Amino acid sequence: MAPAPDSIRSTVENYVRSVAKGTTDEILALYAPGATVEDPVGTPVRTTDEELREFYSVLESLDQTGEVITVKIAGNTAAFLFRLVTHLGEQDIVMEVIDVMTFDDDARITGMKAYWNQEDMQTVPAG
Amino acid sequence: MAPAPDSIRSTVENYVRSVAKGTTDEILALYAPGATVEDPVGTPVRTTDEELREFYSVLESLDQTGEVITVKIAGNTAAFLFRLVTHLGEQDIVMEVIDVMTFDDDARITGMKAYWNQEDMQTVPAG
Repeated sequence: MAPAPDSIRSTVENYVRSVAKGTTDEILALYAPGATVEDPVGTPVRTTDEELREFYSVLESLDQTGEVITVKIAGNTAAFLFRLVTHLGEQDIVMEVIDVMTFDDDARITGMKAYWNQEDMQTVPAG
Repeated sequence: MAPAPDSIRSTVENYVRSVAKGTTDEILALYAPGATVEDPVGTPVRTTDEELREFYSVLESLDQTGEVITVKIAGNTAAFLFRLVTHLGEQDIVMEVIDVMTFDDDARITGMKAYWNQEDMQTVPAG
């Protein structure tokens, strides 16, 4: 049975908040065991806890702001547009991405695919 | 080899315009032979030309306006948020959806998955 849309929405909000402001452990706690990550789509799929930890740990020391712009839910899946701003002193790196996630019955993430390329990453004066 | 991002973007723009204003033939011309459609995600996948034709022909007689809000491209895939407004006299039905598409080398659609549920469809007074 698919989790309730509100549970999926809550995981998505927690995910973007944790990616921006949280620890690697907080991000990984949102994933189900055996989950896979393909970010961006077309690059090798990360399949182990170690690979996921390596991928997200890069973010931990960054000063970031995250915002979910829109979430579309269908059954046990969600596609969502979000913005991640990395603050680098005088400059911000603004990134807008669409992620697609699948969820288990407890609304834990079982798979994530991120759709973006370099054009979706822009450097702007700090706002 | 993945098609150029501009070619993918052009197919996406043509798709949304054709869904809103075009004929079923115009929509189907954007698909590669053997393409599949899952709309919304979680419902049975349409796999034959006849099934795709049946699915899109329903739209042909409707008075609609379409708008691509954002497109994220990764390799030979794209995820995009779009708005489709169906004009029914005094009322508009506003629908916002995220589609994920895969493309062949000629930027023809080989697969489409649509992420939305009933909550993404709203009836508002005609604008």
